[in-house]
Amino acid sequence: MDKIRVCLVGAGRAGEVHGDVYFLSVPDAAITAVFDTDIAKAKNLAEKYQISEKSIFEKFEDVLSYATFDAIVITTPTFTHCQYTKIAARQKIHVFCEKPMAITEKECNEMIDICRKENVILQIGFMRRFDAGFSQAKQMIESGEIGEPLIVKSVGRGPGLPGRWAFDIKNSNGNLAEVNSHDFDSVRWLSSSEYKKIYAVAKNSKSSEIGMEYPLFYDNATVSATMKNEVFGLIDSVCPCDYGYDARCEVVGTMGVLFIGSIRECTTVTCTRKKQIVMPQVLSWKKRFHDAYIAEDRHFIDCIINGKEPGVTGDDGKKTVAAVVAANESILKGIPIEL
Amino acid sequence: MDKIRVCLVGAGRAGEVHGDVYFLSVPDAAITAVFDTDIAKAKNLAEKYQISEKSIFEKFEDVLSYATFDAIVITTPTFTHCQYTKIAARQKIHVFCEKPMAITEKECNEMIDICRKENVILQIGFMRRFDAGFSQAKQMIESGEIGEPLIVKSVGRGPGLPGRWAFDIKNSNGNLAEVNSHDFDSVRWLSSSEYKKIYAVAKNSKSSEIGMEYPLFYDNATVSATMKNEVFGLIDSVCPCDYGYDARCEVVGTMGVLFIGSIRECTTVTCTRKKQIVMPQVLSWKKRFHDAYIAEDRHFIDCIINGKEPGVTGDDGKKTVAAVVAANESILKGIPIEL
Amino acid sequence: MDKIRVCLVGAGRAGEVHGDVYFLSVPDAAITAVFDTDIAKAKNLAEKYQISEKSIFEKFEDVLSYATFDAIVITTPTFTHCQYTKIAARQKIHVFCEKPMAITEKECNEMIDICRKENVILQIGFMRRFDAGFSQAKQMIESGEIGEPLIVKSVGRGPGLPGRWAFDIKNSNGNLAEVNSHDFDSVRWLSSSEYKKIYAVAKNSKSSEIGMEYPLFYDNATVSATMKNEVFGLIDSVCPCDYGYDARCEVVGTMGVLFIGSIRECTTVTCTRKKQIVMPQVLSWKKRFHDAYIAEDRHFIDCIINGKEPGVTGDDGKKTVAAVVAANESILKGIPIEL
Amino acid sequence: MDKIRVCLVGAGRAGEVHGDVYFLSVPDAAITAVFDTDIAKAKNLAEKYQISEKSIFEKFEDVLSYATFDAIVITTPTFTHCQYTKIAARQKIHVFCEKPMAITEKECNEMIDICRKENVILQIGFMRRFDAGFSQAKQMIESGEIGEPLIVKSVGRGPGLPGRWAFDIKNSNGNLAEVNSHDFDSVRWLSSSEYKKIYAVAKNSKSSEIGMEYPLFYDNATVSATMKNEVFGLIDSVCPCDYGYDARCEVVGTMGVLFIGSIRECTTVTCTRKKQIVMPQVLSWKKRFHDAYIAEDRHFIDCIINGKEPGVTGDDGKKTVAAVVAANESILKGIPIEL
Repeated sequence: MDKIRVCLVGAGRAGEVHGDVYFLSVPDAAITAVFDTDIAKAKNLAEKYQISEKSIFEKFEDVLSYATFDAIVITTPTFTHCQYTKIAARQKIHVFCEKPMAITEKECNEMIDICRKENVILQIGFMRRFDAGFSQAKQMIESGEIGEPLIVKSVGRGPGLPGRWAFDIKNSNGNLAEVNSHDFDSVRWLSSSEYKKIYAVAKNSKSSEIGMEYPLFYDNATVSATMKNEVFGLIDSVCPCDYGYDARCEVVGTMGVLFIGSIRECTTVTCTRKKQIVMPQVLSWKKRFHDAYIAEDRHFIDCIINGKEPGVTGDDGKKTVAAVVAANESILKGIPIEL
Repeated sequence: MDKIRVCLVGAGRAGEVHGDVYFLSVPDAAITAVFDTDIAKAKNLAEKYQISEKSIFEKFEDVLSYATFDAIVITTPTFTHCQYTKIAARQKIHVFCEKPMAITEKECNEMIDICRKENVILQIGFMRRFDAGFSQAKQMIESGEIGEPLIVKSVGRGPGLPGRWAFDIKNSNGNLAEVNSHDFDSVRWLSSSEYKKIYAVAKNSKSSEIGMEYPLFYDNATVSATMKNEVFGLIDSVCPCDYGYDARCEVVGTMGVLFIGSIRECTTVTCTRKKQIVMPQVLSWKKRFHDAYIAEDRHFIDCIINGKEPGVTGDDGKKTVAAVVAANESILKGIPIEL
Repeated sequence: MDKIRVCLVGAGRAGEVHGDVYFLSVPDAAITAVFDTDIAKAKNLAEKYQISEKSIFEKFEDVLSYATFDAIVITTPTFTHCQYTKIAARQKIHVFCEKPMAITEKECNEMIDICRKENVILQIGFMRRFDAGFSQAKQMIESGEIGEPLIVKSVGRGPGLPGRWAFDIKNSNGNLAEVNSHDFDSVRWLSSSEYKKIYAVAKNSKSSEIGMEYPLFYDNATVSATMKNEVFGLIDSVCPCDYGYDARCEVVGTMGVLFIGSIRECTTVTCTRKKQIVMPQVLSWKKRFHDAYIAEDRHFIDCIINGKEPGVTGDDGKKTVAAVVAANESILKGIPIEL
Repeated sequence: MDKIRVCLVGAGRAGEVHGDVYFLSVPDAAITAVFDTDIAKAKNLAEKYQISEKSIFEKFEDVLSYATFDAIVITTPTFTHCQYTKIAARQKIHVFCEKPMAITEKECNEMIDICRKENVILQIGFMRRFDAGFSQAKQMIESGEIGEPLIVKSVGRGPGLPGRWAFDIKNSNGNLAEVNSHDFDSVRWLSSSEYKKIYAVAKNSKSSEIGMEYPLFYDNATVSATMKNEVFGLIDSVCPCDYGYDARCEVVGTMGVLFIGSIRECTTVTCTRKKQIVMPQVLSWKKRFHDAYIAEDRHFIDCIINGKEPGVTGDDGKKTVAAVVAANESILKGIPIEL
């Protein structure tokens, strides 16, 4: 069988995470081209993945003109997702698009429509759904282990701010989009319902210099959601988070509770003269979700080869975008927003 | 030194918790009288604590007429707290009053005023503050261990509903008062600030028969608060909670995070042919906060003996009542409420 | 009911632990006398427990001549236990004796015989048996939760060396007696069997200056035991242990495993810029077994009042002494010793 | 670069573990042949890894006659390891050999000698050394985090017995070899020393029918070792272990303690009406050490490509064989054995 040829669209941190996975752990696929407007980054990954000079691109229009491949993995800034997806889909290229799917629901709809029309796969990068713990939890909830869900809580705290372009909330949807799209998806996925009403508060506590230029910028926030099935959601967001990377969920049901995730990186424990029990902490999403990224990317390739519907669809991406937009509106207006 | 003579005002579950503590673990005090409108309960505790027949009362007015003592421990329904406190204080009796302090801020003010005027101790039953873990955490926060607090989360889930009188939210403030006063106090205490704005949602998911009679009754809720110093609070409430008793806090600061409490009852762990790791779970507040109740009651007696200001004051009780009232208003109106 | 009058025989660290328990948490008993050859220590505790000058003693013979009481709590050095027990028992005084019970089996037999003859209670201080976790584990094992025990492991590591008199192994049985009597008792108790064969190794790794004077002194050791029912025991001993106090057991059975105890002091967890998960560690046996000491001392008083056989008997003490003696013999000879 | 061609020698459980790793996660290698005396097993894996019919073998001599490859991965029964290694090495084939390396030290020496002479890589399958937790712990110890090691404890309990051929201790070295080679290696590796003296006890508690035919068979054992640098080792062995797979180490040093490994499979936690805290348990070495196997196999291929000395050598394998042989001798003779 020929390998699925993949073009990395974006050669930043997330591009490299997917690149490493494709290079080492997806035998049915091969990286055959790299694109980034920052050509140095593109070259860097190209060298790492043994891709020839002529398959490195800094203009997106060139990618599809001069390279041949079957799928793209989009990790560029959010505002580019819709455009790149549309161009690629029209050429029958399958699309894996990192979260957030896009800036607006309208963009999401356009992406969904074109991919459906062109009959290409569109998968959104909610890798938590491929994590062993998260997927086990989802199954437990569906099997009734904790009864009917009442409250879903999701923690999303990350060490590093997204790029400067994301500081302007109006054009990027801010941290709730860039950092907490996963949490909005988790609440929706684990509650098996859609957002009905969202109340959010936010403030800028650690980033006063960013606040000078972008007065609406916030670095911590909480979100209180009511889902259509009356499940309550609670999300908290902190980024930059000085102590590490923290992604955990807690689901309270009518008959029990379920905790997903941990801040422990590995099981080593030490005690020393400092008279403390010390354990290594999760510092990066790359390590925390390493296996999930492998499962996610293998799933995408499997969907392409076998013509399957992906486990995470454009609709999933769109619903999260809509919820994030509502949360930002709530922050600005100080009242709950109906969806 | 003569022992401080204590009258138990209320001989239900909470009365017995304090009674046991005074009987076994507060050498400077002695229980000398018991009151309960349910005389059978009063007799039961009287026998347990070796109190003579003539010191058992079913009318509160009789207690002060026929018995002599130095202090009362009030564990009767919330709507009685103000009246009993006022009667006792006028006779120079010191008052330990369980949470919630009262139904309204006005009542709280009356209790505070009379106790101040009569120069008697008024301590409110937020025993979490006397728990080793909670007080250690408070110290850590104050020492700057996690920087400035950004978000304080508090979980308050209990196995058993309060008495029937508390199902009528209008007259009792409902579960947010009876079960979650502790959480409202924790958010305030750990954030070192006062409530500014509260948004809450609630529903009745498990108690449809109660809902018939009391349409406003809720058994699960979430609260999103903004404190005056801009710290965010998140509280969730579930009662009855089928899996046990769950009281935990999490404080995210500018430089770290801190977790308080656990659902583990003791450190025993078993693994069997069921292929699961199993640990005993906290089932009751009585056991979870056993040592805290001892510390709390010893503190009250110490304040009486040495004329100290209690660590938990009428003002602490009042602020929590006001926050609970605002949360219930938010539930009814669907909007955030300013305090 | 009159209170049981207790004389503290020994006013050192262990004497104070029991003294505090009796003073604060055993309402049916009262401390009425204190003895210690170091009179300053005796006076210190006497003041703490509000005992009058005339009830402080520095000669053991004076204690029984000039004071009246019902029971003694022996916490003096091990080599005194037999003598004090015999003198007290002959005067119908009940005896609580800290571990190790004595230096030799012969002494243990004398203590058992005299107490039986004089019909007084003799309880040995294996407080682990009164710990909630240990006793829960014992019940689980007996209920067949993990099948038949195969291997019992016990960790006994303590921060502080016993007194100088205990450095001479020949006259004290050394750390295996002073620190690890609890472990020898746990293996025996949890396996429900008696020692058959013991192999032990030991060395002095941290205390070279003690080794100058006492060449047989060891500060770390391991013990491999075979019980009469073929259960295997594994004990490890480290003292002084720089990181804290560590008392844990692990029981592997035919159908499962069970872990008892933990190095966590309380449930607080913090993560900071140090990028580590940090928890407070157990530093002292006093805090780790605080509740167990209360239960142990209440049990002793209950046995006196109600004429019950104590849960931990002279025979339990004796069997542990015999096992420790065999382990020390194995260390010296380099071969396993049959009991 | 051409891929390193690998022949799987053995198509049982361990063969499949390595096969899956090579197939999915080692891009620089390709499985090109499979051998097993049980041809059905060989065919099964061949189909899974898309290997053609003509590259499936049931006679070892045929493998080297009819197939061309660069390396073999030996997972056949222990008594075949020496022979296969020698045949392969003479044809300049690199050898990865699962533990135990062989039955006797003499065999180990022959394997080491031939591989050295033929200048081929010989790597032994102690995958724990490639586990993130174990290797982190090793580094911590070397950095002095817990001072000098005093005691190294290793738990090795597995759910499934090795093949029937391993029940005859004399010809297989039994469970201490098949199950606990890892523990013997861990004690040696973590103590940075060689075995000096070993005392072991063993019994057959659950497998009476095996005991009929093989009276020396044991299914649980403990090992007490003294290393040349006076570190003490404690190993316990249980197999079959009904509750799951359990591989943990604990290292006590002069200044602290370090725990490696856990029985938790993932971080999900549930509490239900059963009133217990429940976590998924590690059930299989395949899952527990999944990432370690990937790192181990990538390391082997890296050593071949870049001519490096493997991190786990024939000498490591030999030292463990010698220690296991001594432990079995100790079990039989009832005394400690000097190495």
